[in-house]
Amino acid sequence: MAQFSDIAPLLAEQAIELPSWAFGNSGTRFRVFGTPGTPRTPQEKIADAAQVHKFTGLAPKVALHIPWDKVDDYAALGAYANEQGVSLGTINSNTFQDDAYKLGSVTHSDPRIRQKAIDHHFECIDIMHKTGSKDLKIWLADGTNYPGQGDMRARQDRLSDSLQQIYARLGTEQRLVLEYKFFEPAFYHTDVPDWGTSYAQVAALGERAMVCLDTGHHAPGTNIEFIVMQLLRLGKLGAFDFNSRFYADDDLIVGAADPFQLFRILFEVVRGGGYGTDSGVAFMLDQCHNIEEKIPGQIRSVLNVQEMTARALLVDTDALGAAQSAGDVLGANSILMDAFYTDVRAPLAEWRESRGLPADPMAAFTASGYRERISEERVGGAQASWGA
Amino acid sequence: MAQFSDIAPLLAEQAIELPSWAFGNSGTRFRVFGTPGTPRTPQEKIADAAQVHKFTGLAPKVALHIPWDKVDDYAALGAYANEQGVSLGTINSNTFQDDAYKLGSVTHSDPRIRQKAIDHHFECIDIMHKTGSKDLKIWLADGTNYPGQGDMRARQDRLSDSLQQIYARLGTEQRLVLEYKFFEPAFYHTDVPDWGTSYAQVAALGERAMVCLDTGHHAPGTNIEFIVMQLLRLGKLGAFDFNSRFYADDDLIVGAADPFQLFRILFEVVRGGGYGTDSGVAFMLDQCHNIEEKIPGQIRSVLNVQEMTARALLVDTDALGAAQSAGDVLGANSILMDAFYTDVRAPLAEWRESRGLPADPMAAFTASGYRERISEERVGGAQASWGA
Amino acid sequence: MAQFSDIAPLLAEQAIELPSWAFGNSGTRFRVFGTPGTPRTPQEKIADAAQVHKFTGLAPKVALHIPWDKVDDYAALGAYANEQGVSLGTINSNTFQDDAYKLGSVTHSDPRIRQKAIDHHFECIDIMHKTGSKDLKIWLADGTNYPGQGDMRARQDRLSDSLQQIYARLGTEQRLVLEYKFFEPAFYHTDVPDWGTSYAQVAALGERAMVCLDTGHHAPGTNIEFIVMQLLRLGKLGAFDFNSRFYADDDLIVGAADPFQLFRILFEVVRGGGYGTDSGVAFMLDQCHNIEEKIPGQIRSVLNVQEMTARALLVDTDALGAAQSAGDVLGANSILMDAFYTDVRAPLAEWRESRGLPADPMAAFTASGYRERISEERVGGAQASWGA
Amino acid sequence: MAQFSDIAPLLAEQAIELPSWAFGNSGTRFRVFGTPGTPRTPQEKIADAAQVHKFTGLAPKVALHIPWDKVDDYAALGAYANEQGVSLGTINSNTFQDDAYKLGSVTHSDPRIRQKAIDHHFECIDIMHKTGSKDLKIWLADGTNYPGQGDMRARQDRLSDSLQQIYARLGTEQRLVLEYKFFEPAFYHTDVPDWGTSYAQVAALGERAMVCLDTGHHAPGTNIEFIVMQLLRLGKLGAFDFNSRFYADDDLIVGAADPFQLFRILFEVVRGGGYGTDSGVAFMLDQCHNIEEKIPGQIRSVLNVQEMTARALLVDTDALGAAQSAGDVLGANSILMDAFYTDVRAPLAEWRESRGLPADPMAAFTASGYRERISEERVGGAQASWGA
Repeated sequence: MAQFSDIAPLLAEQAIELPSWAFGNSGTRFRVFGTPGTPRTPQEKIADAAQVHKFTGLAPKVALHIPWDKVDDYAALGAYANEQGVSLGTINSNTFQDDAYKLGSVTHSDPRIRQKAIDHHFECIDIMHKTGSKDLKIWLADGTNYPGQGDMRARQDRLSDSLQQIYARLGTEQRLVLEYKFFEPAFYHTDVPDWGTSYAQVAALGERAMVCLDTGHHAPGTNIEFIVMQLLRLGKLGAFDFNSRFYADDDLIVGAADPFQLFRILFEVVRGGGYGTDSGVAFMLDQCHNIEEKIPGQIRSVLNVQEMTARALLVDTDALGAAQSAGDVLGANSILMDAFYTDVRAPLAEWRESRGLPADPMAAFTASGYRERISEERVGGAQASWGA
Repeated sequence: MAQFSDIAPLLAEQAIELPSWAFGNSGTRFRVFGTPGTPRTPQEKIADAAQVHKFTGLAPKVALHIPWDKVDDYAALGAYANEQGVSLGTINSNTFQDDAYKLGSVTHSDPRIRQKAIDHHFECIDIMHKTGSKDLKIWLADGTNYPGQGDMRARQDRLSDSLQQIYARLGTEQRLVLEYKFFEPAFYHTDVPDWGTSYAQVAALGERAMVCLDTGHHAPGTNIEFIVMQLLRLGKLGAFDFNSRFYADDDLIVGAADPFQLFRILFEVVRGGGYGTDSGVAFMLDQCHNIEEKIPGQIRSVLNVQEMTARALLVDTDALGAAQSAGDVLGANSILMDAFYTDVRAPLAEWRESRGLPADPMAAFTASGYRERISEERVGGAQASWGA
Repeated sequence: MAQFSDIAPLLAEQAIELPSWAFGNSGTRFRVFGTPGTPRTPQEKIADAAQVHKFTGLAPKVALHIPWDKVDDYAALGAYANEQGVSLGTINSNTFQDDAYKLGSVTHSDPRIRQKAIDHHFECIDIMHKTGSKDLKIWLADGTNYPGQGDMRARQDRLSDSLQQIYARLGTEQRLVLEYKFFEPAFYHTDVPDWGTSYAQVAALGERAMVCLDTGHHAPGTNIEFIVMQLLRLGKLGAFDFNSRFYADDDLIVGAADPFQLFRILFEVVRGGGYGTDSGVAFMLDQCHNIEEKIPGQIRSVLNVQEMTARALLVDTDALGAAQSAGDVLGANSILMDAFYTDVRAPLAEWRESRGLPADPMAAFTASGYRERISEERVGGAQASWGA
Repeated sequence: MAQFSDIAPLLAEQAIELPSWAFGNSGTRFRVFGTPGTPRTPQEKIADAAQVHKFTGLAPKVALHIPWDKVDDYAALGAYANEQGVSLGTINSNTFQDDAYKLGSVTHSDPRIRQKAIDHHFECIDIMHKTGSKDLKIWLADGTNYPGQGDMRARQDRLSDSLQQIYARLGTEQRLVLEYKFFEPAFYHTDVPDWGTSYAQVAALGERAMVCLDTGHHAPGTNIEFIVMQLLRLGKLGAFDFNSRFYADDDLIVGAADPFQLFRILFEVVRGGGYGTDSGVAFMLDQCHNIEEKIPGQIRSVLNVQEMTARALLVDTDALGAAQSAGDVLGANSILMDAFYTDVRAPLAEWRESRGLPADPMAAFTASGYRERISEERVGGAQASWGA
C-alpha cells in the first residue's frame, strides 16, 4: 500500500464546492424545521460556507442557486465572498418553483413556458459572466405523475431543442452540466432519469456539455462507481453532487449511509483521471441538513470526502493490477479493502496542522463561537430556504 | 366466472372513507402548487368530500386530521357533514409538525415531549367521543436520519409504553390503528417501519389495537397482498390507506401505478373476510393530488377501488381452488386473470344508474359546475394544506 | 377510442420470435425440475415452437442458442423448421458456460480467452450465414462479484475492442444486438449493466449495431417504457427480450407480473415507430418455464403480447394528444386507461377464427394431444437444458 | 472509545458456525464452476471447515445439511469432527430438491407431500439426537411463481400445522429456527417472506421456536439492524445466516458488499444482548464461493465478522447514550463512526498471536500447503454441490 506521505501532495489538490442552499432551511414534504442563526441572505450563506473552508481548507467555492441567490450586484457579492476567503462557483438554475412549471419547464408543451424556462437559463448565463462561474448546472424537475399525462417522446425532443438554445448562449469558457435523477418530484416519469439520457442529450450538444452525477439519484442496487468509470471513459463526467442516501434522494451527509460506496466512487474517480486540479470534474456537495446543524454538517461532509479520497489514493494499484491479471479474486479484493480499512484520520489531522489548519475542524468550529454569534445576530428577516 | 348480477348485492356494501386533507393543497419538498377553489376550512373540505359521495355513492365518511381539522364545535361539524350527505370517520393524530417533535414524539428520549405527544392523542380521543369516530389512526414520523443518532431499542420500548397509555384511554367501542411506513420523513430508521413491528406492538396492547396498511409504505418488490392475507389471518388488519406508487410513497391515485396489484390486494381482502359491512376493516384513501384536480382525483380513486373490487368478486373461486389443488399452474393463474381482464365498467355504470347515481361520475361532476362555483366563491383566506 | 376493426390489419403484422431454450428445462440455482416430453434435440425444440405458431399465428420464427442448438447441417435444420411451419431467427451466442469464462469472456484480461470468445462469435456469424439469420444477439455474463476483483475501466475498453472485431465480421445485412443486464450472474458489477452502456458501445460500432432490451433486466422502479422511447428516438432499439418479473430476472411469462407495464411498453413501441413489418425491432420472448408447462407457457406469452398490443393500438392518440396539450392530467391518463381496461379477448378470438386459427389457442393445444404424444415418444436421451 | 484491551476478553466468546455446503461447489442458474480439491464427502467438508478454525480460532462448529451430509454413522462423523478440532452444529433440512416439492413442501395442498416433508424433518430431529445438535434450522423454498397459482392463506395455515407437528417432535433441549426469505426460488410469493411471518409462526409454536435472520434475505433498502433489535427485544432471534449482497440473495462473503451495515448489525447484536456465550443467538455463515477459493473465502468471512464485532464492542456507549439524550445528532453519529473507522486489524493480529494463532490467517493457510494437498488427493468421485 502507498504511504501517506506519498499521497499528501495530491490531497492538496482537493477542492469541493459547497451549495449555498445547504445553509438555509430544508426539510421534507412533512415539515421544514427552522434553526436559530439560519442565513437570511446570499451574503450570510456565503459567510457560513466560508467557515467550512476556514476550518478545513477543502471548500474554496460556493455554488449559487438562481433565483434563491439573486442579488443586484454580483461583483459585490463576489468581492464579499473573496473577503470571506472563498469565491463563487457553479450557477444552478431553478425551474421547479414557479406556477408556470407545474407540468414542465424546458419540456413543456406550451412554447411560451419553454421560452420562459430558456430565458431563465439565459439569465443564469448572464450571471455567470458577472460571477466568473464556469459551469451552468441544470437539474430539471420535469416529468409526469401519471401514465399518459405527457408525451414522453415529444418532451424529450423539446428538451433537446431547449438545451441547444441554452448551450448556444454559453461563453466559450463556460460549460453546461446536465444532472439526471431517477424520480422525485415527478413520480411516473422523469425527463432526464438516468445517465444514459443525460449522456445522449449532452453528446448531441457538443464538447462543453457534460453530465452531472448526483450520488443520490439512482435506483436501488445501482453500481454508481461503474457510471463514474463509464462517464470518465466517455469524457463526459462534468460534476458530482455528493450526498448519501439509504433509500430515496435523502440528501444526507456524504458518506453517512455507505462509506464503502463513497470509497469505491472515489477510487474510480482517481482511476479514471477525474481527480486533481486539471481533471475537469467539479466536486460539489448537494445536501440537506434537515435536523442536524448545517455548518458542522458541511464540515463533516468535506472531511468524509477527504478521508475517502485519501484511502482511494492509498490503494496499491500495481499490486491490484497484478492480482486482477492473475485472476486472484480474494487477493485483488483484499488489496482494495486494505486501503479502505486504513484509519487515515490521525495522519490527516497532522497534515492539516502542517498547513495551519486545526487538527479537529469540528471541534475547532464549535470552539470558535461562530454558531452562538449568528444565533444572536441573525434575528428578524426571513430565513433562507428552498422557497427563496 | 361469476356473473355481474351475482356480485351486485355485495357491491352495495362498499364504503370508502375519504381523507379531508386530500382536498387541501399538497406537494413535494420542492413545491406545493395551489389551485383555485381549494378549501380553507374543515367545512369546505367536507363539502368537497361530499361531492365524491354524491356522484359515486361510495364514500359516505370523511376522516379528519388533528390539528388540521380542529374546530370549536364538533357536534356542529358532524351535523354539517350530515347535511352534506356524509358523516365523520376516523381521527388521525399528527405528531410531525410541531418543533418539539423534530427528533421524535411518542418515542422521544425526553419524557416531557413524549407526554406532549401522548396528550395530543388523548385530545384526539376526546374529539372521537364528540364525533362518534370509531378509529384513532396513528401514523408516526418518528425515526432517525443517521446511524447512532438514536437508541432504536429504547425508542421501541418507549413506543410501547406510550401506546399503552393511549390505548388505555380509548372508549370500549374505540380502536387504535397503528400504521407502519418503510421510510420518510426519517431516512435511516423508522420506528414503525414494517407490518411486523406494527403487529408486535398492537398484539401487545389488546384486541382493539389493529394494524393499518398503507399501500405505498413498503420496500420495492414487497408482495403487499401477502401482508393483507397474513394480517387478516392474524385478526389484526384494521384499516387500509389506499394510494399507489411507482417508487416511494408517491401517494398517487389508487390503482394508477399498478392496477393488477390493486386487484390482487382486493382479492385477498375478499378471500380473507376483509370485505363487507361487518368485516372490521376500514377502507380509506390517503392520497395527494399535487398536480391533478382534487375532487375528480378522489372520484377516480373510489371508482378504481370499486372496479377492482368488482373484478375480485367475479373470480370463480371454486374453479380456482380446483386448479390450485390439481397443481395446474397456468390454469389457476388463468382463472384469476379472467376476472382481472373483464371489463366491468359498463355493468357498473348500469348498476349506478339503477341506484339513482350518474353512469359516469367524472362527467357528471364536471357538468355540475361545482368546480367553477368554489373557484369563484373561495376567495381570500388561507388554503388548507398539510401545514394547517 | 379506435374500433377493433381499425386495428385488425395492424395485428396481422405481429411476429414474435420464440427462444428454442424455452422448450428445454430450466430452473433456479436450487433446482431444475424436468418434465416428460422435454425436447432432447434442436429439432424437437423447433417442433415444439412450431406448435405455438400453429395455434396462434403469432410466432413464425425460432431463435437459436449456440452451442445449445449446434447441428452439423443448418440447411437441413432450416428445412426442417420450414416443414414445421416456422423459420430460423436470431442467433444467440453463449460465453457463460465454459470454464475459461469463469472471470469473463470478451472482457477477460487474458487475450487468449478474449480471442476464444471472439472466435465463438465468428462461429455464430458463420452459422447465421447458413441459417439466414439477420441478428446476432450478444448477452454477456461478464462481470465481477467483489469490488477490486477486476478493473472495470480496462474491461470496458476490452469489451469495445472485442465488439469491434465481431462487428467487422458481420455480413452487410446482418446486425449485432447487444443486450444489457442489471445483475446476475455477476453480483458486484456487470460489464453491460444498463441501456446507456449498451447504447454507448453500439453507437461506437456503427449503424448495424443495436441495443436489445430485456424487460427483466432493470433495477426496481425503472420506467422501462421511457427507455423504449429513448432508444427508438436514438434509432438504436434493435430487439426485445420479453418476459416479466416481480423482483429480479425472474423470466416469467410476459405480462404475468405487471400487465399494465407491458401495455405501456407496447404503447411506446407503437408511438415510436417500433411496431410493424418494417420497424427493425425484433420481438422475442426470453422466458423460463420452471414449473409450468412449456408450450402452453409460450402460447400464453404470445397471446399476452398480442392482447396488449391490441390495447396499445386502440388508444385514441388524437384525443390523448389534445388532453396532453391542454394540461388535462386526469383526462389524458383516462384516455390511456380506457384502452387498457378494454377487454379485447372476444374480438381477438373472432379475429383468429377469421384467419383459420382456433378461437382459444390454449384449449386447442390441450385438445390436440400433442403433449401426450411427446411425453410418450420422447423417452431416453438427455433432455435439453441450459447446460446443453 | 473503549480500549482494545477492554474488549479482548469478549472477543474470546465469539464462535461462528460454518456451513458444510460452503466447501462444496455452488453457482448460479447459469453455471456451477468446479474447483480442484472440492470435497466429495461430508468428512472432507468437515476437514476443510476445520482448517478455518485452525487458523482463526473462530469457527468451532460445522452445520450440516440433510440429505447432502447424510452418513450411516453420525457418531463416527462427530468423532471425526472432534479429531479435526471442531464439532457438529445445526442441522439444516432440505425440502427443495425432490421432485415432489416442485409446488411446495410443508405448505403443499397434497397431504401426502406435506407428510413427506414433515417426515423429513422428523429424520432431521433423529439425526440431531445422534449429533448432539441443538438447532433444527428450516428454510423453505415454498412459494409460487404466478398470482393465483396457490392459495396463500391455506398455505399459511398448512405451514402452521406442519410446523406444530415438527415442533412437537423436538427434544426438550432442541430448538426450531425458522428462516425467512424475500424471494427466490419462488418469484411471486414466498410462504415465509419476512421476519413478521416467521415471528408470527414461531410465536405460535412456543418458547423453543425462534427466527433465523439471513442478512441477504431482505428487500432493498431494508434496515436489517432494526430487525435484529426488534427480534432481540421480542426474545425471538435464534440465529444468523451471515453473508452479503449487492442486490438479491448474492450469498457473498459477509461484509464484502457493505461493511458498515455489518458493523451496525453487530452493534445492535451487542446492544440487545445477542452476543456472548449465553446469548442464545447462533452465529452462522451461509455463503457461496462461486468464483473465489472456498476455504480462504470462509477464513475471510469469519475474520470480517470478528473485525466488525471488535469495532462494535469498541463503541463508547456511555458517550453515545449521552449524545443521544442531548439530541446531538452529529455528535452521536460521530461516536458510532469513531469505532467503525478504527483500524482493529493490528491489535487483532496481536491478540491472535497471544492465543497461539497465526497473526495473518489468510497467509498462514496459503503457506500451509493444504490447498495443494487436497487438489492432489481428491481425485475422482463426485464433487459435493447443492445437488448432493
